Amino acid sequence: MSEKLLMKGNEAVAEAAIKAGCRYFFGYPITPQNDIPEYMSRRMPEVGGEYLQAESEVAAINMVHGAAGAGARVMTSSSSPGISLKAEGISYLVGSQLPSVIVNMMRGGPGLGGIQPSQSDYFQATKGLAHGDIKLGVLAPYSVQELVDLTYVAFEMADKYRNPMMILGDGMIGQMMEPVEFEEEIDPDNLPRKEWATDGTSGRDRNKITSLSLDASVLEDLNIKIQEKYSRMREEEVRYDEYKTEDADIILVAFGTTARICISAIDKVREEEGIRAGLFRPVTLFPYPEDRLEELSHDAEEFLTVEMNAGQMLEDVKRIAGKRRPVEFYGRCGGVIPGIEEIADKIKEMRGE
Amino acid sequence: MSEKLLMKGNEAVAEAAIKAGCRYFFGYPITPQNDIPEYMSRRMPEVGGEYLQAESEVAAINMVHGAAGAGARVMTSSSSPGISLKAEGISYLVGSQLPSVIVNMMRGGPGLGGIQPSQSDYFQATKGLAHGDIKLGVLAPYSVQELVDLTYVAFEMADKYRNPMMILGDGMIGQMMEPVEFEEEIDPDNLPRKEWATDGTSGRDRNKITSLSLDASVLEDLNIKIQEKYSRMREEEVRYDEYKTEDADIILVAFGTTARICISAIDKVREEEGIRAGLFRPVTLFPYPEDRLEELSHDAEEFLTVEMNAGQMLEDVKRIAGKRRPVEFYGRCGGVIPGIEEIADKIKEMRGE
Amino acid sequence: MSEKLLMKGNEAVAEAAIKAGCRYFFGYPITPQNDIPEYMSRRMPEVGGEYLQAESEVAAINMVHGAAGAGARVMTSSSSPGISLKAEGISYLVGSQLPSVIVNMMRGGPGLGGIQPSQSDYFQATKGLAHGDIKLGVLAPYSVQELVDLTYVAFEMADKYRNPMMILGDGMIGQMMEPVEFEEEIDPDNLPRKEWATDGTSGRDRNKITSLSLDASVLEDLNIKIQEKYSRMREEEVRYDEYKTEDADIILVAFGTTARICISAIDKVREEEGIRAGLFRPVTLFPYPEDRLEELSHDAEEFLTVEMNAGQMLEDVKRIAGKRRPVEFYGRCGGVIPGIEEIADKIKEMRGE
Amino acid sequence: MSEKLLMKGNEAVAEAAIKAGCRYFFGYPITPQNDIPEYMSRRMPEVGGEYLQAESEVAAINMVHGAAGAGARVMTSSSSPGISLKAEGISYLVGSQLPSVIVNMMRGGPGLGGIQPSQSDYFQATKGLAHGDIKLGVLAPYSVQELVDLTYVAFEMADKYRNPMMILGDGMIGQMMEPVEFEEEIDPDNLPRKEWATDGTSGRDRNKITSLSLDASVLEDLNIKIQEKYSRMREEEVRYDEYKTEDADIILVAFGTTARICISAIDKVREEEGIRAGLFRPVTLFPYPEDRLEELSHDAEEFLTVEMNAGQMLEDVKRIAGKRRPVEFYGRCGGVIPGIEEIADKIKEMRGE
Repeated sequence: MSEKLLMKGNEAVAEAAIKAGCRYFFGYPITPQNDIPEYMSRRMPEVGGEYLQAESEVAAINMVHGAAGAGARVMTSSSSPGISLKAEGISYLVGSQLPSVIVNMMRGGPGLGGIQPSQSDYFQATKGLAHGDIKLGVLAPYSVQELVDLTYVAFEMADKYRNPMMILGDGMIGQMMEPVEFEEEIDPDNLPRKEWATDGTSGRDRNKITSLSLDASVLEDLNIKIQEKYSRMREEEVRYDEYKTEDADIILVAFGTTARICISAIDKVREEEGIRAGLFRPVTLFPYPEDRLEELSHDAEEFLTVEMNAGQMLEDVKRIAGKRRPVEFYGRCGGVIPGIEEIADKIKEMRGE
Repeated sequence: MSEKLLMKGNEAVAEAAIKAGCRYFFGYPITPQNDIPEYMSRRMPEVGGEYLQAESEVAAINMVHGAAGAGARVMTSSSSPGISLKAEGISYLVGSQLPSVIVNMMRGGPGLGGIQPSQSDYFQATKGLAHGDIKLGVLAPYSVQELVDLTYVAFEMADKYRNPMMILGDGMIGQMMEPVEFEEEIDPDNLPRKEWATDGTSGRDRNKITSLSLDASVLEDLNIKIQEKYSRMREEEVRYDEYKTEDADIILVAFGTTARICISAIDKVREEEGIRAGLFRPVTLFPYPEDRLEELSHDAEEFLTVEMNAGQMLEDVKRIAGKRRPVEFYGRCGGVIPGIEEIADKIKEMRGE
Repeated sequence: MSEKLLMKGNEAVAEAAIKAGCRYFFGYPITPQNDIPEYMSRRMPEVGGEYLQAESEVAAINMVHGAAGAGARVMTSSSSPGISLKAEGISYLVGSQLPSVIVNMMRGGPGLGGIQPSQSDYFQATKGLAHGDIKLGVLAPYSVQELVDLTYVAFEMADKYRNPMMILGDGMIGQMMEPVEFEEEIDPDNLPRKEWATDGTSGRDRNKITSLSLDASVLEDLNIKIQEKYSRMREEEVRYDEYKTEDADIILVAFGTTARICISAIDKVREEEGIRAGLFRPVTLFPYPEDRLEELSHDAEEFLTVEMNAGQMLEDVKRIAGKRRPVEFYGRCGGVIPGIEEIADKIKEMRGE
Repeated sequence: MSEKLLMKGNEAVAEAAIKAGCRYFFGYPITPQNDIPEYMSRRMPEVGGEYLQAESEVAAINMVHGAAGAGARVMTSSSSPGISLKAEGISYLVGSQLPSVIVNMMRGGPGLGGIQPSQSDYFQATKGLAHGDIKLGVLAPYSVQELVDLTYVAFEMADKYRNPMMILGDGMIGQMMEPVEFEEEIDPDNLPRKEWATDGTSGRDRNKITSLSLDASVLEDLNIKIQEKYSRMREEEVRYDEYKTEDADIILVAFGTTARICISAIDKVREEEGIRAGLFRPVTLFPYPEDRLEELSHDAEEFLTVEMNAGQMLEDVKRIAGKRRPVEFYGRCGGVIPGIEEIADKIKEMRGE
């Protein structure tokens, strides 16, 4: 670990990407993540990497395709509407089995929406971002340090599974300043050679990267292979965090920055009301920590999903914990951040206080 | 009702749109739905409408935005990758509350994939098509006649809720020829005036159409309004169909063309094995027929979801019927159509025969 | 002739196009010609025509290609930078031998320049607008009535020679209001069928429109054919106007609105100084009225080219009249309109007064 | 001078650009100049430069604008239709006074035309490439060595005059292999600082690069300044070559590769017929070597312009030499290369043999 630096989330994720061996960044500006491309435009030339502002988000994701196909560690970043524009390209990355990292610093929608923080792209990130049976590994940090650490993880997972990974933050974590430490820097030249890459090296058979298979049975085989990777991710990559769940009667489920507010609300109701509340925080939104959440539903009496949206992860919590226990929801939309008080009130209401 | 005509699904949906008062069509070609734009390019001029092949799917969906904003009934169509390209624009339609109809004749993915039929965009259509807390009404026909009827429904719902609607078919239904009747033709000039439209009419206050709200509380109010519309849709628009569910021990859940194959499998196992199997077929995928499915889970002993994908609607069936009953899955991917025999075997396996 | 109407040049050229049978207009906005697309957007639907604002000037000229190829009378308009963007497409129109009319209401350059009137695209219009040995018929009106009349001529010539024609005006003539009369309206349905058009009509052999010829001798034959058309234009289409040239010792050569100012200057020096000055005004800039200008150089003693540019038509005047007589130049650039006084002073200086 | 290398013209111009300090290349593929971007894509990274294949020719020329504005030596290359697409951007380079080098390896037109060599963009290059009173310095090499040498000259002139320069070759010179020597390499870091560039350096007043001037008198001043640069180029940059003109009765005028064929034809008629023929070869097409050509028209009896087009430079020769002497033309179009025999026959015909 290096010395501690005080960094803004957007800059930290950019620096972490570089330290994780990323040398290609393609983007298109959108608030509230513009510090990422700005930082990259300055740092990439210093490390011999390439920064390019593409002519659109569609172009940027296709440039990611190109660099990933050539075997490089590559990243793009955007915020909600920009991610929608990348949808088709992301499906192509899955279909071509190309490792890559996509950062979404979510803002309020729908449409152009606003520039305040939001979590209203949970469904998009975890379920239906694009056509085809696709999944991205989705990592949801709740602090700048975790953002940094998960960036390394994202690049490792991307290469391991040959699949795009998404870092799902929001405007809050992007703008927040916190002290961070970076793991040891990875020299991209020391990374293992990608045998499948179209890196133009002579002395081997021709590699081909495509997502096209006009023969349905060939395409089904590809899908089976991809789904097997997702099964493996479900076994090997689940990450979550808990806070005071041991004795909890009511468990809040929240991801990202919302979880921070939930912790304060939990402390408050424990202290003021003696309510035994706890937090279950999925760190990987895909693969979702299903087993542990199911397990928790044996002891806790009820569940409260808190999100900065109209109720999205709620569906997963209902599907998993809802078999045994009631699941309620508290959320705010459009860039409004839920307050500690509001959440505490909701907990008290549920516990009948 | 008019006389019966033998029509291909793709042509029938186009003709139904025109009869439902649609006078604007913007598209970009992609197999297996090219008969739709081709038909529209010929028919639209005949009825005084506008057909335009845009320079891309992104352009097409934004032209839909323009026509919808001016108060017209407007449609676009595409197949899987093309729908992904429209994702951002669709979120804008939701945010600007603009009625419109989007046809997706699904093909196998991910990426460029193949041109054979598929249902692998269920998640996309019903959960996370784009950023923001958006929903489309999603209508899933299983015959050419139902495709025609639902097209009228889609335009009516679009106007009623000021929200885009999706007709979710697949390559099979698009190419299938069946006899169809059309309801009475709607003259767009007789449709009620849209008071909110930017139709340039003088003598009223200025209308403004936008999805931008930089003030978070204004944007939250918009979201609340939109979610209320979705609640109302859940109350008023649920559609489903059943086949031999009255005495069923095992209920298959399937939508679209897959449901046709399930019916044959059900008949087969009833006749040959005496297995009491039935079918629950959601016609609206959003709003999902949750109550009825939950109700069925009281009596039926087990559920089998059958899809042409890797298991997507499965999650909804698990969430709803899974509380009481085991839910299994049978699916084929990449354009492979499941056979009657395969499904029958799966049923038998589940029933322990 | 119809009744007299007071019209702005930009509107008059649009109305004249429609009366000349034009039913397709494709454009992209740029000052100072925006009244043309605006007028067309209103009028085209009234006459059953099509107006489309393309996504760029490049798109617009290619849409002209499409409509012209289908046999329609079609127009686009722009101002200087927008014409440059159309350069490639115009060469394709020539190569594919497609009739079409292009209006350039010139503004000051280079680059983005300004929005004031200019004649600095003379070289572009008459010499090197694009690659390949191309010529456009170039018509340079000096009044709104002539603008109207030449618009009919442009459509007739375009069809006669299967070549694009340019109407070369400037910001001044576009904004100027003058009374105009229109010739009898042409019904496009009564125009002779274009046997070469790809109008989808069955019952004839396949027509093909292309500018591609990979075989050099075939391409040379095409060029010879095109050059023969230009020779024929030189014989049949030359148009010019003269003012007091009969006894002139000094002849001003000017086109378009500049010619109006020259006439005032000529009257002034004739009256005040007794200088016998006259004006030669080419109406067709291509084909250039070479023979008449050469003829005039037998009697007149000297020539003065006046342009709103840095000296472009000057080269042609030198080439033709310069064999016998001295040719001088007076011009203003960047949107500055030369004054009567300035021109009169230049005449006096040349005549040694 | 370095050792002699056998190089293809297209590769030689690319290497010469790099040796002349060019570190930015933006292009879009088109035959017959694809070796240039290909070579650049390999070489630029080796010298720490940037190579980018843009999404279109329009994009490429605007990237040139960006790099030139930042003070770098930058080049783009294309062939005829691609140059037309760059027309608007080139006018912006002139208006913003940005040094840059544009290579046109001409092919037969008009439109898509063919891929064989041609000189049919002479008018475009020297007269009306785009709107506004613009000129490019135009350099027309006739051998690979001259192509190399003129590339250095082009970069020097571009910086000296802050104006784009064009190297006008054709498919023949691009494909031709000849031994070449390179002048000493220029390190871009040792080039004088461009005080006007927007290179982001702090410690000086803000620089602004624009071609916009809404005030006509300001725009006229810019035009005057630009025309003064062109006058200076006419005084200082004229280059030409002659072959056996001393005693010539008939002088051929030709540029580029056509001049090579003319030399053979001249040798042939001198040897076989005793005709005293010579060649005047303009190396700079702008500024055109007017004075020397005029001078030659005092002694030589007649002139023959030979071009691979329908007669373009012919107009300049007529304007200059045509005052005293008859000027005739011989040309081939569409990619057909004139033969020695044909030219010799034309000479004989003119000399009455």
